[in-house]
Amino acid sequence: MTSATTFAPPAAGLHGIAGAPAPAAADVSLRDMANAVRALAMDAVQAANSGHPGMPMGMADVATVLFTRFLKFDPADPAWADRDRFVLSAGHGSMLLYALLHLTGYPRMTADELRSFRQWGALTAGHPEYGHTPGVETTTGPLGQGIATAVGMALAERMLAARFGADVVDHHTYALVGDGCLMEGLSHEAISLAGHLGLSKLIVLFDDNAISIDGATSLSCSDDQSARFAAAGWSVRRVDGHDPEAVAVAIAAERRTDRPSFIACRTIIGYGAPNKQGSEKVHGAPLGPEEIAAARARLNWPHAPFEVPEPIRAAWRQAGQRSAAAHRAWRRHLDSLPVETRRRFAEGVRGDIPATAHAALDAVRERFAGEKPVIATRQASQQVIEALAPAMANLAGGSADLTHSNLTQAKSQAPVRPGNFAGSYIHYGIREHGMACAMNGIALHGGFVPYGGTFLVFSDYSRPAIRLAALMGIRVIHVMTHDSIGLGEDGPTHQPVEHLAGLRAIPNLLVFRPADAVEMAEAWALALGSEKTPSVLCLTRQALPTLPRGETTRGGVARGAYVVVEPDGGRDVTLIATGSEVSLALGAAEALAADGIRAAVISAPCFELFQRQAPDDRRAVLGSAPRVGVEAAIEGGWARWLGEDGAFVGMAGFGASAPAEVLFRQFGITAEAVAEAARRLLDGRE
Amino acid sequence: MTSATTFAPPAAGLHGIAGAPAPAAADVSLRDMANAVRALAMDAVQAANSGHPGMPMGMADVATVLFTRFLKFDPADPAWADRDRFVLSAGHGSMLLYALLHLTGYPRMTADELRSFRQWGALTAGHPEYGHTPGVETTTGPLGQGIATAVGMALAERMLAARFGADVVDHHTYALVGDGCLMEGLSHEAISLAGHLGLSKLIVLFDDNAISIDGATSLSCSDDQSARFAAAGWSVRRVDGHDPEAVAVAIAAERRTDRPSFIACRTIIGYGAPNKQGSEKVHGAPLGPEEIAAARARLNWPHAPFEVPEPIRAAWRQAGQRSAAAHRAWRRHLDSLPVETRRRFAEGVRGDIPATAHAALDAVRERFAGEKPVIATRQASQQVIEALAPAMANLAGGSADLTHSNLTQAKSQAPVRPGNFAGSYIHYGIREHGMACAMNGIALHGGFVPYGGTFLVFSDYSRPAIRLAALMGIRVIHVMTHDSIGLGEDGPTHQPVEHLAGLRAIPNLLVFRPADAVEMAEAWALALGSEKTPSVLCLTRQALPTLPRGETTRGGVARGAYVVVEPDGGRDVTLIATGSEVSLALGAAEALAADGIRAAVISAPCFELFQRQAPDDRRAVLGSAPRVGVEAAIEGGWARWLGEDGAFVGMAGFGASAPAEVLFRQFGITAEAVAEAARRLLDGRE
Repeated sequence: MTSATTFAPPAAGLHGIAGAPAPAAADVSLRDMANAVRALAMDAVQAANSGHPGMPMGMADVATVLFTRFLKFDPADPAWADRDRFVLSAGHGSMLLYALLHLTGYPRMTADELRSFRQWGALTAGHPEYGHTPGVETTTGPLGQGIATAVGMALAERMLAARFGADVVDHHTYALVGDGCLMEGLSHEAISLAGHLGLSKLIVLFDDNAISIDGATSLSCSDDQSARFAAAGWSVRRVDGHDPEAVAVAIAAERRTDRPSFIACRTIIGYGAPNKQGSEKVHGAPLGPEEIAAARARLNWPHAPFEVPEPIRAAWRQAGQRSAAAHRAWRRHLDSLPVETRRRFAEGVRGDIPATAHAALDAVRERFAGEKPVIATRQASQQVIEALAPAMANLAGGSADLTHSNLTQAKSQAPVRPGNFAGSYIHYGIREHGMACAMNGIALHGGFVPYGGTFLVFSDYSRPAIRLAALMGIRVIHVMTHDSIGLGEDGPTHQPVEHLAGLRAIPNLLVFRPADAVEMAEAWALALGSEKTPSVLCLTRQALPTLPRGETTRGGVARGAYVVVEPDGGRDVTLIATGSEVSLALGAAEALAADGIRAAVISAPCFELFQRQAPDDRRAVLGSAPRVGVEAAIEGGWARWLGEDGAFVGMAGFGASAPAEVLFRQFGITAEAVAEAARRLLDGRE
Repeated sequence: MTSATTFAPPAAGLHGIAGAPAPAAADVSLRDMANAVRALAMDAVQAANSGHPGMPMGMADVATVLFTRFLKFDPADPAWADRDRFVLSAGHGSMLLYALLHLTGYPRMTADELRSFRQWGALTAGHPEYGHTPGVETTTGPLGQGIATAVGMALAERMLAARFGADVVDHHTYALVGDGCLMEGLSHEAISLAGHLGLSKLIVLFDDNAISIDGATSLSCSDDQSARFAAAGWSVRRVDGHDPEAVAVAIAAERRTDRPSFIACRTIIGYGAPNKQGSEKVHGAPLGPEEIAAARARLNWPHAPFEVPEPIRAAWRQAGQRSAAAHRAWRRHLDSLPVETRRRFAEGVRGDIPATAHAALDAVRERFAGEKPVIATRQASQQVIEALAPAMANLAGGSADLTHSNLTQAKSQAPVRPGNFAGSYIHYGIREHGMACAMNGIALHGGFVPYGGTFLVFSDYSRPAIRLAALMGIRVIHVMTHDSIGLGEDGPTHQPVEHLAGLRAIPNLLVFRPADAVEMAEAWALALGSEKTPSVLCLTRQALPTLPRGETTRGGVARGAYVVVEPDGGRDVTLIATGSEVSLALGAAEALAADGIRAAVISAPCFELFQRQAPDDRRAVLGSAPRVGVEAAIEGGWARWLGEDGAFVGMAGFGASAPAEVLFRQFGITAEAVAEAARRLLDGRE
């Protein structure tokens, strides 16, 4: 690298193309500034005695160019809606981001926080955590998630710009990725979708250091990454990642393309650690005191641990102020807009559910309650979406190529197309994982509440992204249809049996399995209203009757479980079911009544909401009579509701290929089987 | 297509390159033979009133060329070790495969089976199911799984050939993929790994029909697939998928390359259905009687449903006999080999665990029991692998780029390298999903027992493939380390909390969480011995003491749960724990003893095996005293063992970034907390 390159003026030959530097900070070179990042990274990892120094040291030059010349951000307002988004997809290199946040002046990212890297309660968690650390745009660490989430952010930016104009929304999304991100299959879904849509304001910076944990990437990978991105329609280029001016030229050029951009930055992992750099030894372990001393000598960085000389600090602070004026101008422009536009923009960014949407949901629920349709819950969901879409401008729908099966597209929703982002329905393609990440990115970006459809069985494909949404506490809505053996002939590969249990195991996730159209409408309303929690709506392929319901059942879904039928004279047995099995339980209760057995029927559309109820309220619903649980799925956590002596009618293994009604009969999930289980339970007690 | 192309002689200009045709069957063209496939597919889908006619009709020409000129197979012996493997990655097109199996003479694939397409008990399930239908090499349907599994098969072929020579092992793996398979991120992991390793005998046939379920693929995808495969090091070419001779030339040429091959076959989905072909309408629904009649006219196929004229049947039967002579010759050669070679080959193909391996496992267990090491279970696993690898020639290890963390490589295991398949350790790269699929493919191919490592939290990435292994009933062993918040500073993105519950929910999967080195050795032995069940070994990062154990604890893991400590004079309380928490339970029992409370301690390393015990045996272990469960994870299915009144000490949400011991303390998972929970439980009873 050219160590003479200074922070201040762009090189003469660049004619101003290479980004807008901050005001001059005499005698401080970009190299000096990058070395501050390197030193903080190696010192913090050493202090924690764990962490990843290699990536921050290797990418310090690239990141310094980005943060000092291009990135539009304001440490005083990390939530500025029109900031550029910076996603550290290679999240293990978290100290790179923490050092940058510290140096550019994010108030809470103090030197003490850096010293407390990876300690309990510190802002400097092992991997960047959204919601925990201001300036972190998304939680990263599980590889590939960052780049795929960045695609969602870049898409939301274009969609929002299409609605409010470039004066209000016009920013870039940068993602820093490593070899790991690009080996993960998820990256393919992300780059393919971004290339298709032509997300020109997305720029991926590849830390091309040819090292992964096991050693040289040549142990396991021979991809030509640039050719690969080009095949997906990206603009690609390569650059020496330790030549700041070359990096600046590359970024400047790629900001002007009409395609998403991939810049492969050839770097040396652990750059500056003379004996360990360029090897896997610097990837994920402290350098050790000796190597740190040697690195200080090599980098000409004689300062004490965590110490940054004032001129370099000042240059970094100036970099952090670079966009303040632009931020003020943007706000002035926003304030000059018609009040209605401002209101819509603010509502969208905050993710408010407009009053019209609430009204539409209420109306659909009431209509269902009155008309008592016999329809699949996926069809009920479709009717909800039909009503909701025109009433909620910030709703962004989509499906992973199962639109006509998931029934996720309203007539009023035009598709988003390459170059035309005015639509509100996204054809995500056969990319369940990429869709879930893009939904996370859309939610994180702000401006839209995303939902997306696939089959419930394919929640396995998107599970890592669902988990991250739950961990981040963001509102995304997964519409997952064909929720049991009720899917029928497609067979066991397509029939979820363990997925309800698997999803219910994820903390901070609402798993809804509505029993009829009314519950469906209530579940949609709850999912939309859960600002800090993702939801999965598990819906049937097959038609279900509307439950009999009195006024006391209103809002039953919000309570998680509620009494549908309470027999006169007390309960002999309580039948608890979800989704399509509630009507079986009702049938069983009738059969038992004929035998003089009084059965209550409980619908339990959301275990998580039921768990949140007061213990007495839960006991009132569950009662003290013996209990039978019914769900066309494996038992999983049902024992929590059934007690040790309870019975469970469900699946013990995988499904099979046959018409749905045959499967329910063959697997013994019928009203008769439920009644029989209740009788056996009562006989056993006598 | 050239309808004059006959089945029998290769076109003159081809000079014999285009595959070896079966003996002449006069006047039967490849077109006729393909039309038989088309007709059976549309008739079966119509009879079932569900299914996917589009792909079989579109790819009938390509498949006919493959099965009549290239594929080495013998319907009389679907298990012939040196057969070519044919993987229908686009599994929804199952009728293509069933029609081919029927026509080429697989005895059980009768016309009645075709008529029973997608019905209960039929061999003709909605998607092809391994183990259910002879001739089906792997279960497919979830997109991308087939191509990624095929990579494992092709890898196993090369590894086995490196050991036994080309006279014994020399066959191709063909995978038929659609747009869906190629949009799935998994396909990237698969083609990248195959390209890196140079799996030259893998040939992918792409049904390039430009249609997916939502409509034209241009709705969601603009990839240049050929360029993409080329970027991963594949040999690529395009061909008109309705021109049999061109297809034959392409396959013949690609069989001679030194790289894996990608042949994009331009096809018309639903070829032959005059009003619906070329659109999404033929993808996944019956054509209907009118369109079927029109297709019969267009294809000049005047025959009744399921009827195939005898000359065409004869031509297909001849195609099915093409390799019979080669099969006999192969067997003669095998019989001529030294008895020891034959034994090794047969053992490998059957997946036998050699006696030396059993001895090695026993020895490791006894050493652990004697030495009582204080080591992490991942280190204990490493010692097992060190002992096992030299004693088990058919063991194939690997890791998804976490070798030094998972501790999965024995000193005796050389890596598999491009062009050199003599090694037995696979650097899978950062491709957890691709690894799990490749492991499935290796197990399905035969010759090796595969294991592979990653962090437990990343089981989410490989979950769809773990599910398929469980559904297929094959032995693959997942070594998943860093199994709880005990992972420490990397934080919640890397700390599994819901993964034990999520994996335990999958039917036919053994989830082991050993408490010490001895349990670890027993778990390894059980995983290796479970021929029809995949296993996940969940291992600690942190060191654990060896449990105190008497002779009655021997084989405790095989019983799923067993008594480690039985207090004198009966139990006041029973503490049940797994893995790293068993030693906490022991500490709690000591603390309770000091208070005069008699606590039993149960180690429960495998819920699934415990569930298989006789109810009385389970009751004997669990006892009738109040129970406390302890696991550094969410509760999930624990209630099944604890009863309604039991207490659970574990995680209620996600973890955090801090040293492990701090996390256990902060999240209240300590011996003191367990003792306190027991005291509260007993107080509540009094």
